[in-house]
Formats: sequence, structure tokens, C-alpha cells
Amino acid sequence: MTYVAVVGGGVPDADADELAAEVGGELARRGAVVVCGGLGGVMEAACRGAKEAGGTTVGILPGSDRSAANEFVDVAIPTGLGEARNALVVRAADAVVAIGGEFGTLSEIALALKAGKPVVGLDTWELAKAGESVDAIERASTPADAVERALVLAGVD
Amino acid sequence: MTYVAVVGGGVPDADADELAAEVGGELARRGAVVVCGGLGGVMEAACRGAKEAGGTTVGILPGSDRSAANEFVDVAIPTGLGEARNALVVRAADAVVAIGGEFGTLSEIALALKAGKPVVGLDTWELAKAGESVDAIERASTPADAVERALVLAGVD
Amino acid sequence: MTYVAVVGGGVPDADADELAAEVGGELARRGAVVVCGGLGGVMEAACRGAKEAGGTTVGILPGSDRSAANEFVDVAIPTGLGEARNALVVRAADAVVAIGGEFGTLSEIALALKAGKPVVGLDTWELAKAGESVDAIERASTPADAVERALVLAGVD
Amino acid sequence: MTYVAVVGGGVPDADADELAAEVGGELARRGAVVVCGGLGGVMEAACRGAKEAGGTTVGILPGSDRSAANEFVDVAIPTGLGEARNALVVRAADAVVAIGGEFGTLSEIALALKAGKPVVGLDTWELAKAGESVDAIERASTPADAVERALVLAGVD
Repeated sequence: MTYVAVVGGGVPDADADELAAEVGGELARRGAVVVCGGLGGVMEAACRGAKEAGGTTVGILPGSDRSAANEFVDVAIPTGLGEARNALVVRAADAVVAIGGEFGTLSEIALALKAGKPVVGLDTWELAKAGESVDAIERASTPADAVERALVLAGVD
Repeated sequence: MTYVAVVGGGVPDADADELAAEVGGELARRGAVVVCGGLGGVMEAACRGAKEAGGTTVGILPGSDRSAANEFVDVAIPTGLGEARNALVVRAADAVVAIGGEFGTLSEIALALKAGKPVVGLDTWELAKAGESVDAIERASTPADAVERALVLAGVD
Repeated sequence: MTYVAVVGGGVPDADADELAAEVGGELARRGAVVVCGGLGGVMEAACRGAKEAGGTTVGILPGSDRSAANEFVDVAIPTGLGEARNALVVRAADAVVAIGGEFGTLSEIALALKAGKPVVGLDTWELAKAGESVDAIERASTPADAVERALVLAGVD
Repeated sequence: MTYVAVVGGGVPDADADELAAEVGGELARRGAVVVCGGLGGVMEAACRGAKEAGGTTVGILPGSDRSAANEFVDVAIPTGLGEARNALVVRAADAVVAIGGEFGTLSEIALALKAGKPVVGLDTWELAKAGESVDAIERASTPADAVERALVLAGVD
């Protein structure tokens, strides 16, 4: 079984959420489990897309209360770890697809790269040092492209 | 959805494992998700029982490698937290069924009681202070009785 | 440097707190760092005793706010992990002295025993299985005796 | 008491380590506790600088073994959480000074910004979205400037 984390902002954003729903759907069609932080915005949209395509979704929540999970989460894990749970989202995944996002998403991108896990980006953070771009995030042009790259990099395809 | 953790020793033990398989099966028949630490012994037997009854199983692993999960785990969460993951097994559950077990199991019993979650025991630890028994663990006589008590105490029945 | 965790109830209790203050003081005089959960009751008393004897104290807090530490904590680590921090209190220590205590203390005793770390008890939990006492906690008769046993078992003396 | 985390690469790097030692020394002279991940490179240099100036140092380690701490750590906390400990380094601090660094450092920067804690950078990561720089990291020109900014932003000066 392949697990792919979909990470992004927790506040609804029409553009990012549409991308996330398509990524979630494509992951489900390709047979991958969708892992996420379990809350709203990109997390919810990815789960919704996956469920509409018949997939399985896992939400690894920051709080201790399972009811915070969005309604499209199949298996909700309330960790009570706060943002330290971001490390667990990454550990649970073979690859990460980052869509838009704020600092929490950036931490997940960084933790994934630190752990040597592939990160595919859609309209997400850009990294540089001393004015030089650091191309650690694989850039995708569409949701289907993002999923294809994530699965290839995860060694599935 | 109700989640019940089944906790117990990680080393195969014929008596405990038979109890665990029956508890897992009964939880599945009653519609509860089986949560466990994802490894062998009681954890594996509970997952096996649940899968044979068509249920869903979640393994919250101490290490960072998903492949350590027993073969009956549907959703494996490699936490990389070591024994600190015991707190997560408990947080993910509405009630805990403890079967036999060693010190790791005792820590899960204690963490559940600290969190105010019901703990039902089958042949497991007995607690006392100053020579007086502390009856915090609900004692069950059979696997079916354990599941019934766990679901009632979890507020499901 | 030797670190010894002092674990016990967080609510003030005259008898337990007096034992804890003496344990903290003796640990400081013997040159050990006192580690605890950073809050009140036994934790505060152990830190107070250690500071009165010129020792060093570390509080590993469940919340994210350092100000929850008692006033005798030198170094406060707000973990934000909730009761999962109990595993960190134990990991930070070479030995554990348990004084009285409730379920949180029991979880720390269990996690220490699971990790193979010595646990010395003063008026604390008693463990049994199938009616047979499990003598995993080294029983001490006085605070000085508890410290002596903890340091010997930690391999210091 | 003010705690400032110094985060950066764990592999020795002459330029970054010199900056880190100066930051550590200045933090100690200003009365702040130096928090870090406890290992080598920038972490060790910051601790060395702080100790040479008579300060206090805390190392929050990824592993379970205290002996992994560099020799300039006063209080070593072996968490056993792996990179999830990065969240704890940030939680333990009122402000973060980032020096150079790789993906682990980037995760600490991101977790600090997510938690609303000020981050001051010296030759460290640069962030952007959609080609536009995101100026969330306060840029300092010298170690003394970094410490001054960190303490002001932490509300100390």
C-alpha cells in the first residue's frame, strides 16, 4: 500500500481546494491512501476528492478530539501533539504533495525533505539560499502530474 | 464511529492471543474500529480477529517504518515516537481493552485512566496502593463481555 | 551527570510533598539533577527541596506555556505533548523515584520499567498479576534510602 | 527568564559555526538561556559560545541517549522523538535565531513562524511564493544584531 500526504492551508481557498480535490481523487484512483492533517481547507478538499473516487483517507489531527476531523476522513488519529504532529503526517507518507499553504505546510515540506521523502509542489513555497534557488521541491503543472510524479518518486510506478 | 484500543503483550502467547482475536472479532461485528500498537502478539491477534470479521484495523507504530506493522493492519501509522506512541494509541480510542500484557500495556492502562477513558481488563494488571486494591480497571470474564463493557462505557450502547 | 526523575501527584499532599522535598534535597546533595513534570504537588516539592540544597531542576511540562512551571524549576521545557510528555520525563532520567501518585505517576512507573530504567518507590503503586505481586518497583523506607537506591541502581554509586 | 533557540546545520561549517558561537556568547551575556537541538555544528558552536560567556545551555535531542549531546550542553533532554523534537526546540524558546542550515533548520523556522514566534536569520533560508519574497524572517547583519533583534522581538528589551 502506498500512502501519500497532501499538505496545504487549513483555511478554505477556492483555487487550492480545487487542486487538492483533484489530487485526492487521482490518488484514490491510483490506489494510494490519502494522508493529511485531518482539518479543513486543502486537507478537507483532498479527502473529499479521494472519497468521491472511492479511496481511503487518514487524518492525523493536532488536537486530542477526533471530532475536529473533516467529514471525509475515514480514520482519524487525534494525536494531542499540536504542530509536532506535522512530523507524523510526513512519517506516515511515502511522498508528499504540497498545495499552496502557509508556515505549517512549509514545516511539512521541510520535514519531508529532511527525512528524504519526495515532495511535489503545486503553487507552493519556493526556497532559496543566498539568492540561489534551492530546487528541492519537484514542481508539477497539474494535479494529475503531481500524483504521477509523487508515485514515481515514491517508487511505485 | 467508535474506536476501541486493544492493548497487550507484543510477544505471541497462545492464551492471550486467543482472547485478543475474539475481542477483535467481536469489536468488528459491533462496528467498532480496532486500534492497537500495530506489532505482534495481542496486537496482531486482535487485528486478525477483526479482519476475519470484516472490520477495520489501525496500527500506531513506535518506529518510523510502516513495514513493522503486522499483516492484519489496514492503516499503519509509523510515528517514530518510541513508547511515547502509547499515549497516541490511547488518545485514538474511546475505550481500551487490556489483555495480559507487560509494562508497555500497564503504561497504556495508566494513560487511559489518566485521560478518563474506560479500561476493561482480561487477565491483566491488578493495581493497589497501601495494600488496598484500586478497582479502576473494569474486569471482564470473556471477550464478548469485555467488548460489551467497553462499548457501554464508551457511551455507545 | 546523573538525572533522576521524581514523579508523583500534582495536587498538594502534605505527606507526599514532605517526602518529595527530602528526596529532592538529597538528590541535590548527591550531585544529581532533578527532573520532573514541572507542575505542583510532588513535582514542586522535589524542586523546592533540590533548590534549597543548591541543586539543579528541570521541568518537562505537558503544555506549551513555560509559565505553568513551578517556581523552583530552573529549566522549563514546555512540550505541548500533553501526557505523552510522561515518556520524555522518563527518557530524560537515569532512574525514577515515585512518591505516592495517581494514574499519571503509574504511567511514568510503567514507561520507566518498559525502558529498563530502575524505579524506586515511596508509598506508591503496587502491582500484581493473577493475584501475584510483581516486585518491579524497588521499595524504599525513607527519602535518603530512596535516593541511595536510585543512584546505586542507576550505576552511579 | 528568556530562552532563545539557536538553530542551524549539524555538520561543522567554519563560517556558520563562528556566527553561532558569537550568537551564543551574546545571548549568555544578555542573560538568555540558549536552547538548541543538542548536537554538533551550529548547535555545538552556540553552546560553546554561551558557556565561554558563563551562560546556560539546553539541548533537546532527537534520540533517546543523552550521550549524543555536545560537551557544552548543560541540560540534555533526550526526547526519542526524532525530528518531531524540532517542534519542541521551538516551543521551548521565546525567539529563534537561524544560522545557515538545511531542511531541519527550515522546519524549525517554519514551526516557529507557525507558532507566532519571531525568527531572526543570519545567512539562512529565503522564502518566496509565486515569485514574491515572503519576508517572515527578520534578517540580521551580525551576531550581535541578531541577538538584539531576537530579544526585542521576544519582548525582552
